[in-house]
This record gives sequence, structure tokens and C-alpha cells, in this order.
Amino acid sequence: MIIGVLGGGQLARMLALAGLPLGFRFVFFDPATNPCSAPLGEHMQGEFTDRFKLELFARRVDVVTFEFENIPLECIEFLSARTVVHPGPGALALSQDRLLEKQLFRELGIQAPVVRGVDSLEALEAAVMEIGLPAVLKTRTLGYDGKGQHVLRGPDDVAKAWQLLGGFSLVLERLVEFDREISILAVRRACGDMAFYPLSENVHQAGVLRFSRSCPDDPFQGLAEEMAGKLLRRLDYVGVLALELFQVGETLLANEMAPRVHNSGHWTIEGSETSQFENHLRAIAGLPLGKTAVTGHSAMVNFIGRKPDLAKLLALRGLHVHLYGKSERPGRKVGHATLWCRSKGAFTEGCRALRSLY
Amino acid sequence: MIIGVLGGGQLARMLALAGLPLGFRFVFFDPATNPCSAPLGEHMQGEFTDRFKLELFARRVDVVTFEFENIPLECIEFLSARTVVHPGPGALALSQDRLLEKQLFRELGIQAPVVRGVDSLEALEAAVMEIGLPAVLKTRTLGYDGKGQHVLRGPDDVAKAWQLLGGFSLVLERLVEFDREISILAVRRACGDMAFYPLSENVHQAGVLRFSRSCPDDPFQGLAEEMAGKLLRRLDYVGVLALELFQVGETLLANEMAPRVHNSGHWTIEGSETSQFENHLRAIAGLPLGKTAVTGHSAMVNFIGRKPDLAKLLALRGLHVHLYGKSERPGRKVGHATLWCRSKGAFTEGCRALRSLY
Repeated sequence: MIIGVLGGGQLARMLALAGLPLGFRFVFFDPATNPCSAPLGEHMQGEFTDRFKLELFARRVDVVTFEFENIPLECIEFLSARTVVHPGPGALALSQDRLLEKQLFRELGIQAPVVRGVDSLEALEAAVMEIGLPAVLKTRTLGYDGKGQHVLRGPDDVAKAWQLLGGFSLVLERLVEFDREISILAVRRACGDMAFYPLSENVHQAGVLRFSRSCPDDPFQGLAEEMAGKLLRRLDYVGVLALELFQVGETLLANEMAPRVHNSGHWTIEGSETSQFENHLRAIAGLPLGKTAVTGHSAMVNFIGRKPDLAKLLALRGLHVHLYGKSERPGRKVGHATLWCRSKGAFTEGCRALRSLY
Repeated sequence: MIIGVLGGGQLARMLALAGLPLGFRFVFFDPATNPCSAPLGEHMQGEFTDRFKLELFARRVDVVTFEFENIPLECIEFLSARTVVHPGPGALALSQDRLLEKQLFRELGIQAPVVRGVDSLEALEAAVMEIGLPAVLKTRTLGYDGKGQHVLRGPDDVAKAWQLLGGFSLVLERLVEFDREISILAVRRACGDMAFYPLSENVHQAGVLRFSRSCPDDPFQGLAEEMAGKLLRRLDYVGVLALELFQVGETLLANEMAPRVHNSGHWTIEGSETSQFENHLRAIAGLPLGKTAVTGHSAMVNFIGRKPDLAKLLALRGLHVHLYGKSERPGRKVGHATLWCRSKGAFTEGCRALRSLY
């Protein structure tokens, strides 16, 4: 089976590393000259708006998936009319629009931060009055890794935020004072089978995920599964979906969903019986899902901007290094490492050693 | 770092799958048109005797290793004069010659089956008298997967065996009535650091490995480590070495060594903290070795000749499938699967399910 992936970055690369042993071959469609997944398959260079190249791509592959959600919806719709695309256009459309996404959450009884659409300074001021401060002004579409966001803490920030982001279609969201940031990775096949990974607890810095750890037996597991399960069923979803959540006291608020494999699930490569990458492929290929139980204790750290000293890292017991074959650039995710330990004691010690090093 | 691999089969492919996340790139030197590792790196097509192409290969890579031991010794010597080759020509030379290999075992105090060199029918008859029957007549060089061997059970077999194998340089070996076939995978860096994997217990069918399982806490672990350690030190070895052993009552006899990653260590991909493939690369790249402790209970089965039904296999809990991207052909290893379970109970049950299926 030939899997077509829109986007050829590290997520596509890790999909291929998981899929080659299953006998899959890969075609990566990416506008870049030399995307980091290229060594693992065939690279078709093209814009996501180039219908001629997309037509060739659709003919070349058996199923299409994507590694990021900022792909023009028309691209996915065009491909869906020609071949199988998982997840489908419906899930992509929702994840691209913060307002529609939050409306769906509400409709499904999934608690989420209060949000209002904003398309003028007057509307922004009205929304601030209604929601209160602090709040976050975000672009409705095309945001990722904290980009396209501005926090409003006092009344003075309103005009400033409007100056920065005005002109885009925006939403104002109540800033949630959360106890923890967590996420759940869920996967569903077309036949309806679902599986859920143990929760990830996440730490962001400057809007970018820095650190995740697996939380088996977390008291919020059941609630998170219920929330993700509702989404999967409603969207008739096929593949892995990530749902980012805020824990606030005794409840969870849905922050956003990503219709793809997710950085907060990278620990599943070592830390779960079946990685998120393999399960995404199993799902879109119509194969039985693998078990998602943890194999031990796992924590993941991202390498951002700069590559680490490999020899120093590998000297740490239980550390598994994943470099993406990307050049260094400020703010760019160039790799990650997962600390995996069988025993809790070694894990706690390893986390300390890892922190001192990076 | 660019790793050059002589041979582009499944072992080279699994080396690349382990090495790409560490930032290594791969060049595979193989006479075949389209070896199964080709999708994971650069393929240089050439004969192992083609000095011009070998010269280009040596210039192209930072370190050379090999995935099988039936490479002309002159090839490794030629490359060693031009770049770093791990393991070196000394280890390769020994592993290519059953007589020298057994002599080294004896010299190091490593118990091994009695063996005699044979180069005429008369010498064979004398060796049979000395060693007794049953015995195995083997080619001194170029044997693998049971090829180039003939078992002598009665006096009538002597002439027949000579008819089949006479003309080659041969050895006659006492046929060992063993209790178990086991192997130990060991790894050593140039600085002298060594690590040993928990023993593998192996089942061969028609000379080909069919089934392996990891044996943590095996009572023979210490003795096997001592034997392998002696070899590693004596050969100033760098990389992974496999030592195949017979358990006979309370002792171990060394059957043969393979200076490379080994089929009986495939379970280490899921079943050990660091796979044999990653540790081989760490060793030859001069990086710290990873821990070899088991992560759970593992058993591996080879797919020989025919590819399995993927959907059926993946429906088995804990089964991890590795296909090599090779076409089907009788007797050819086209893939393997590893059953991995955290608990002993699930493992026992899984083994039963696996056996019923394959």
C-alpha cells in the first residue's frame, strides 16, 4: 500500500519510520525543496493549490493523510473526490476554525473556554466586556505553536492587540487559569473501533511544546476519553486525533483539537505498546488497531532551534534520541528525546539528569 | 555521520531504521539491482571485488560496517586501508573459517564441539574414526543458514557426504546432542566498554532460524557473557557480535560466531531498552552504548518464503510486524514478527495464539 502524506516534516518522517516495517511505501507532497521526510520515500514537490500535481499525487497513492492542519481545505476536498483521504475534510475544516471548533465542543457537551468571534475593534471591545480579562485574542484560522495569538491582561491591551491582529478574522477567548495542560491521543478506524492513549501532561514555553510525560492511571483519563470519543464518532473520524485540554480544578476544558499525530504523543514510540504513528497508519489502512497501554514511564523533551550533543545525551540511561534531519534555526523543532524507564525510581532520577543537561 | 554498509538486505535495512533517528545517513554497497535497504539511503551497486567502486564507497562514507560475513576478506582489507571499518578484518577472517574459529575458541578456553580439518576422503575417514558418529561435515568457509552442511549418522554416509561436499575445504564436527540452542548478542566500543544482551533461546528448522525468545535471568547468562567477552577483547572488537551456543547439560559449547547484528537478536527492537541495531551503530560511531535490559517478555518468529496476512497478525495483541520489502521466494526470510508483552501471563497466551496462526 502506498501512503500519500501532505507535508513532509518530522511527523511525516516518523509516520514513514513506523510504516516501512509494515510494508507501506510513502509519497510526501510538500512545496519545500528537500523536506526532512524525503530520504524515507518519494517526494513530490508542489504547492497545495497546484491541481495538476495534486491530481498526479492522488493517482500515485492508495490513501492520503496529512501531517499538519494548515492545508487549504480545497486541497483536501479536491483529493477526496479522487482517492481516500483520512481524516476527511470535515475534521480538517473544524480544526482550522477556532470558532466552529468551539461551537462543536459545546454542541457535543464538551466543556471549553468561553469564546466570541471578533471582526472589528467595536466587536472586540464588546467581547472583552462580556468575557472579561485576562483573555486571548487569536486568529480564527492558521494559528499554530502560539503564533497568531495575543494575550490581553488590562484594558490598555485591547487597542494594541487589535493593532497587531486586526484585519484577520479573530476570536476572543477567556484566558483559562489552568492547573495542568494535558492532551489525549485517540485513534479510530472506519469500522468504529477506537483506542485511547494514556494522557499526556504537557509544558509549553512561548507557545511551543517543550516537555510531555505519559500519565497512566490519571484520574482524568475517563473524562478525556469521553470527550475525545464524542468527537471521533461525530466526525466519523479515521486516524489519530489529538485533543488538548486544560485541567481546571475537578474538570477539563477542551482547548483545541489537531486532526493528526501530535507532538505530545511522541513518547508513544518507546512508551506505548503501539506508537501513535503506527496506529494512525493502521487506522487509515483499515488494519486492526494496536494496544495503547504504556510499557513503562516516559517523558519527552523537544529540541528547539539547536541540536543537542549526541554523545552527552546517549550517555544518559534510558534516553532515546530522535533527530529530524533538519538544519538548525531559532524556534524550529529539530528533534526530541524520550526518557523511558521500567521503574519509577529510575525514571525520577532520569528526569533530574535530563533537566540538568538540557 | 555517513555509515557505509556492505550488503543491502534486511539487516542493513533495520540498521538504517535504527540509525536515521540518530541523525546518521546510509550508503549501501550491494551487487543487487534493488536491495531491500535501498529506500532508506543511497545504493551503490557494485561487486565486492570491484576496487574502483569500493574506492568511491570508502570516500563517500565515514565508517564502514557489514551485514553478512560472506564478503571477500580482500574487500574488507582494501577498505580498512582507506577508512574506518568495524568490525575489522581480523574478526571477519575468523568468522569465515570454521577451523580457525574453533581453534580460537579453544585457545581462549571457550568450550566448543570437537572439530577436524578434512581435505580428502582418507582424511574424512580418519576424522570419523577419531571423532565418532554422528558428525557433521561442513565447508570451512561460505556456509550460512545450514547451507554447505551434511550430517553423517552411519558409516554409509561417509562416501555420500564426500560426494556432495568433496572438493571444498571441509571440517568434520562432532554432532552435539544439545538440550537448547541459545545465542548471546554482545557489543563493544573501541574504548573497551561492553554490553551483553539477555540470552536468546533459538529454534532452527532445516538449518534456518525460525523462532527466538529472550531469556532474562537465564542461569547460563554469566557463562555466556564470559565466553563472548573473551572474544570481544581478544579481537579488539567494535560493534555487535553474536555467539551461537549449545547448552549440553550444565555447560555451554560455542557453535559459531557472527561478526554482525543477528537474526536471534531481532526481538531486541521491542524487547530491550536499546536494540541490537542501535547499539551496533552507537559502537561503530564511538557513542556511548545503550542499556540492554529487557523491557518485557519477547519472542520472535521469522516469516520464511511467504508473507503473512497483515490484518490477521496485527489483530494479535502485542504483535509487532517487520516486513523487509522483499519479494516472496522459497526459503527466503521476508520478515519477522515480535510478540512483546509486559506480563508473563499475556506472553504465554500470546505465544499460543501466535503458534496457532503461523
